[in-house]
Amino acid sequence: MENFRFHVTTDIRFGKNRLDELPEALGAFGKRVLLVYGGGSIKKNGLYDEVTSRLKEASFEVFDLSGVEPNPRVETVQRGIDSCRENKVEVILAVGGGSTIDCSKAIAAGFYSEKTPWDLVLERKGYKGPALPIITILTLAATGSEMNAGAVISNMHTNQKLGMGGPSMLPKVSFLDPENTFTVPKIQTAAGSADILSHLFENYFDLTPGTDVQDGIAEGLMKSVIKNCPIALQTPDDYDARANLMWASSLALNGLTGSGKNGAWSCHAMEHELSAFYDITHGIGLAILTPRWMLHVLNEETAPKFARFANEVWGITETVPELAARMAIQKTYDFFQSCGIPMTLPEVGITDDSKFEEMAKQAVAHSVISTKAFVPLHEEDVVAIYQASMKKSNFL
Amino acid sequence: MENFRFHVTTDIRFGKNRLDELPEALGAFGKRVLLVYGGGSIKKNGLYDEVTSRLKEASFEVFDLSGVEPNPRVETVQRGIDSCRENKVEVILAVGGGSTIDCSKAIAAGFYSEKTPWDLVLERKGYKGPALPIITILTLAATGSEMNAGAVISNMHTNQKLGMGGPSMLPKVSFLDPENTFTVPKIQTAAGSADILSHLFENYFDLTPGTDVQDGIAEGLMKSVIKNCPIALQTPDDYDARANLMWASSLALNGLTGSGKNGAWSCHAMEHELSAFYDITHGIGLAILTPRWMLHVLNEETAPKFARFANEVWGITETVPELAARMAIQKTYDFFQSCGIPMTLPEVGITDDSKFEEMAKQAVAHSVISTKAFVPLHEEDVVAIYQASMKKSNFL
Repeated sequence: MENFRFHVTTDIRFGKNRLDELPEALGAFGKRVLLVYGGGSIKKNGLYDEVTSRLKEASFEVFDLSGVEPNPRVETVQRGIDSCRENKVEVILAVGGGSTIDCSKAIAAGFYSEKTPWDLVLERKGYKGPALPIITILTLAATGSEMNAGAVISNMHTNQKLGMGGPSMLPKVSFLDPENTFTVPKIQTAAGSADILSHLFENYFDLTPGTDVQDGIAEGLMKSVIKNCPIALQTPDDYDARANLMWASSLALNGLTGSGKNGAWSCHAMEHELSAFYDITHGIGLAILTPRWMLHVLNEETAPKFARFANEVWGITETVPELAARMAIQKTYDFFQSCGIPMTLPEVGITDDSKFEEMAKQAVAHSVISTKAFVPLHEEDVVAIYQASMKKSNFL
Repeated sequence: MENFRFHVTTDIRFGKNRLDELPEALGAFGKRVLLVYGGGSIKKNGLYDEVTSRLKEASFEVFDLSGVEPNPRVETVQRGIDSCRENKVEVILAVGGGSTIDCSKAIAAGFYSEKTPWDLVLERKGYKGPALPIITILTLAATGSEMNAGAVISNMHTNQKLGMGGPSMLPKVSFLDPENTFTVPKIQTAAGSADILSHLFENYFDLTPGTDVQDGIAEGLMKSVIKNCPIALQTPDDYDARANLMWASSLALNGLTGSGKNGAWSCHAMEHELSAFYDITHGIGLAILTPRWMLHVLNEETAPKFARFANEVWGITETVPELAARMAIQKTYDFFQSCGIPMTLPEVGITDDSKFEEMAKQAVAHSVISTKAFVPLHEEDVVAIYQASMKKSNFL
């Protein structure tokens, strides 16, 4: 196990009917609030009214920033910073999924900086400056942004989608009410679950020895998602299924399964280029790439970890490691497909391979996948994984 | 899943060679330090010198409180409070296992209170007042006190051992260096592992529906302990084995596996009476009671959870729930025994049953085991479990 620091101070308020606590939580930081949200689903399902009526009753001044994109754009971040400065905002309330929260984080840091938001993004994970306090009300179980200090921002002009972050960007309080995810459409429920699983896989498939605690936790969370995603798809208002997906999303990427390990996050590096070039849904891109990546990196050295995955997560009893591994990869692919996720790139509109080399170049340049990884990936490996994602696959 | 709040702000510094960070961590709170420790093992293994030399170099004023008992006593808490007041202490540094940290927590709260320490303990888990900041350097993987807000204090005059706690008692920073546990004797390594497992069992065996995330994490931690305890017993300086036990100890009782559930902590309630009346090692008392408690509460309603435990943790493939359950209970008993733990009460000096009724009365009075529990336990149940612990058992 590697040395690590684990310091996750977010105050999680998990469960139903807790919005009465919102004025106290926000009020600890100020009365002037930037309310950040996405495409307006919270207006349709009543959450917007529930939140704003409570805040008005408690004399908060609320300024809206609506229309955050599924891959939040740097222009929206700038819009938010402008509003915060103009309106002397003291605290940001993000109501939405990972995109809304990520956008809020970049606004929170950008507020204090003289740099452009994109220059801040280019600093990546090293942001050391201050940030406005952020409170979140989560409406989608997926990215884990509600309990970590990272954000992913897109620049469609340069075709770049990059991660950034720093300790001050960690949300102060996150309200996790599973009922707020009852109205999430099936495809987003599936994509969110794929995102959670991908976070777990990225940390799990790593060669650092002696990480039973991290891997045991990851396996437990994987099984929770694999069990509960189909239930939520079948019965969208199953409280316990939604609760397990929601809590799994936070714990999958708050450091619990990655601290003490050296994950290189290969699939995320490759997927960020798909989203940056084609603006596809992040979780779906991950689901498509993941089984192809698994097969690509399966070798004699990595087979034992895949065999453990096969046995612990999928209950596969095959004892030949490479066979068990292939069966587990097939199970993973079949699971995503059974959740209704389109499992090839053409199905999400990426019908030609003309940009794969440029995307592969960027994937390698913006990450450490070619140097430290479960299996290092070079540009030709990335192209091969993109190519393998063009048609249906069989892994056995 | 039940509603819960999860807010664990302890800054974990995990790994080797991190004591250079100690002056910065302590210095954030003050320069006058109460250094709390136990029987002096840290003087033998060099840790005391390492710590004090660093603090002297950085001009801290250090006041020692040594001799904290394995079941820390209220008189020692009073001694610590007196020293803090006399020496105008600003921050407490606990170097030791759970007893040392628990004692430090009670001192930290007692410092600000006009009540006697025992009156504070009698407030149990509801302490809302302030506390001196606490930094810990953990030397034993067991209680999880390094990452939670609880403490257990004993009063040998009244034969009482009671839990207390409150948010201000949560350690600010905890240094978790697995190398500091290399010199822990075999029996303490085994007892600590039993304590970790018991924390996991107490949360796991509960009837709250829809807690896959909590239970999956608990199973992963159980398997980590069951794998790594024998390695640490065989090879005391196996870094990864010690690292997994240490991180498991913190995560087993920081709320991760219990939040959203309703555990009644039956074995702890029963064991606290054994320790209070006979001053035995907590983890050993738990190991002795646990399998007998499991058998006592096995019934048609609880068998499915035991069957899940059998399958997920012990790899038992038997499909008849009650049979699988009994096999798992036997495995649990055999595991403790294989770690060198004496598995009957007479082996730890409790040779007659004359106090069992009085102890059972107190166990029920000081807890909720007779009202909300996996299976409610009344005085006669507790006596039966104590009686069953008098001789070797077979569970099949």
